[in-house]
Amino acid sequence: MVTLKIGIIGFGPFAQFLAKTMIKQGHLLTATSRSDYSGHHGVNFFRNMEEFMELEHDVILICTSIISASEVIKSIPFHLLKRPTLFADVLSVKEYPRQLLLQEVPEDSDLVCTHPMFGPESGRDGWRDLTFMYERVRVRDEALCSSFLNIFASEGCKMLEMSCEEHDRLAAQSQFLTHTIGRVLSEMEITNTPIDTKGFEKLVQVKESTVRDSFDLYSGLFIHNRFAKQQLKNLESAIQRVKETLETRMKNSDQ
Amino acid sequence: MVTLKIGIIGFGPFAQFLAKTMIKQGHLLTATSRSDYSGHHGVNFFRNMEEFMELEHDVILICTSIISASEVIKSIPFHLLKRPTLFADVLSVKEYPRQLLLQEVPEDSDLVCTHPMFGPESGRDGWRDLTFMYERVRVRDEALCSSFLNIFASEGCKMLEMSCEEHDRLAAQSQFLTHTIGRVLSEMEITNTPIDTKGFEKLVQVKESTVRDSFDLYSGLFIHNRFAKQQLKNLESAIQRVKETLETRMKNSDQ
Ligand SMILES: NC(=O)c1ccc[n+]([C@@H]2O[C@H](COP(=O)([O-])OP(=O)(O)OC[C@H]3O[C@@H](n4cnc5c(N)ncnc54)[C@H](OP(=O)(O)O)[C@@H]3O)[C@@H](O)[C@H]2O)c1
Ligand SMILES: NC(=O)c1ccc[n+]([C@@H]2O[C@H](COP(=O)([O-])OP(=O)(O)OC[C@H]3O[C@@H](n4cnc5c(N)ncnc54)[C@H](OP(=O)(O)O)[C@@H]3O)[C@@H](O)[C@H]2O)c1
Repeated sequence: MVTLKIGIIGFGPFAQFLAKTMIKQGHLLTATSRSDYSGHHGVNFFRNMEEFMELEHDVILICTSIISASEVIKSIPFHLLKRPTLFADVLSVKEYPRQLLLQEVPEDSDLVCTHPMFGPESGRDGWRDLTFMYERVRVRDEALCSSFLNIFASEGCKMLEMSCEEHDRLAAQSQFLTHTIGRVLSEMEITNTPIDTKGFEKLVQVKESTVRDSFDLYSGLFIHNRFAKQQLKNLESAIQRVKETLETRMKNSDQ
Repeated sequence: MVTLKIGIIGFGPFAQFLAKTMIKQGHLLTATSRSDYSGHHGVNFFRNMEEFMELEHDVILICTSIISASEVIKSIPFHLLKRPTLFADVLSVKEYPRQLLLQEVPEDSDLVCTHPMFGPESGRDGWRDLTFMYERVRVRDEALCSSFLNIFASEGCKMLEMSCEEHDRLAAQSQFLTHTIGRVLSEMEITNTPIDTKGFEKLVQVKESTVRDSFDLYSGLFIHNRFAKQQLKNLESAIQRVKETLETRMKNSDQ
């Protein structure tokens, strides 16, 4: 495996989770973030974004929150780049960072937008058979892009090439809906009972894994995926329909 | 194990599922139902409720739908009973059949209300560690009641003695909520996508197992559990709160 010099921007929970495997694979990691993560094992951390950008990276990986992506990406001092670099991101929405990166990243640098469909919990025991979605937005250095994708492929991820638009359409129906139901169940303060059915146990698990992610992440799924609002409406109207069916049935059984 | 003569009233999917294990255990089964199930393997089926009631049963097990329970129980010709018999039910709500059975079953017959917290799907590979809830509503023949409960205990069920009221309170928060979310997801026509997260896969499973149960069953959980209406309100208002939090966050991120 080719050793890559990878610079990570935004060193929160998900970046730290990815870094563990990248370090295991022998890549050289540097990072910068709003907060101070100096002293993190196996990662050369820079508080100062300028110093970070003056290093020669093969790949710069954006791992910041969706909500802060615009501010963070616009603040990157791209003029300090010494050579064309592959920019990649892992945000859980895809059209939005794709657009931002196309606007901001210098023309001679390559661009791949990705979404690992797993996290610290579902990927705890390895990444085998977990899905890794990506769009090759602007790739000229094929070898470098392959080496980067191979970080995930070599761990056994299901590699799925898909447009950012298609991703967002599907993720609104699946991931955003899951997070919404998890947050709703959390609002309802559901907890295990002595008479749990298997189905209810699954809902408790969905609730618990949802609230482990930050509210920034969840609100990013809503604010920056243009398909999410419609899904929230669909959820509300589906509940109304189910409720009406119950009420009709109740009226009929009264007669 | 004592061999019991068990008469089942209402021989739908769940009764047939229970019967399989009872036959395996060597009990003698008869049944009656609205529809004709003559010829069902290992079960002596009577289209005629009078003929059924003239037999000498140790236990009569009510397995009819919640929605039809009042009509079915009130139509039982109890005067044909030749001797005191243990009446039991497996309805997924408990205060309602408890009340009905206390009103209708002759004073000298015993009464136990139960809810096996599993079904044809979750109990497919055996009943080990699955919960069996029961209330001994009126028991004088301890030996008979124990023999009946032992059908479930001997299969490894977690035997849980609980009042019907407590059951309904907890089941509204867990089982009714699970069925509601399953029905809502079904209304939304959710299906697997190529980018499913583990959480979304769980929701698809909840949807699929929910809609396998009849709508009669689901509407019974709502109509005849006095705690269910409040849970539906709680679900609606939790969604409103989550939605407002998202909208507030979106407004703030616009500024
Ligand atoms: N968690 C997952 O399972 C998962 C899976 C796939 C993709 N992702 C994506 O990975 C990214 C990181 O997710 P996460 O789980 O670590 O949590 P997150 O809350 O989405 O993001 C946390 C990261 O954003 C940075 N950040 C937040 N606000 C900032 C601001 N105003 N200015 C600068 N930086 C800011 C944090 O920096 P500091 O820590 O330095 O404060 C931290 O690095 C997100 O885009 C998420 O959608 C997450
Ligand atoms: N399915 C489960 O996983 C599960 C688990 C625990 C407890 N339970 C409880 O077990 C009972 C049976 O459930 P189920 O899954 O078999 O489906 P169900 O739809 O709740 O009930 C079907 C049964 O009700 C009878 N029935 C329906 N309407 C009737 C009417 N108007 N008059 C007379 N009989 C009528 C049916 O008779 P015919 O078939 O003869 O038409 C059939 O025996 C329910 O009380 C349910 O709450 C079910």
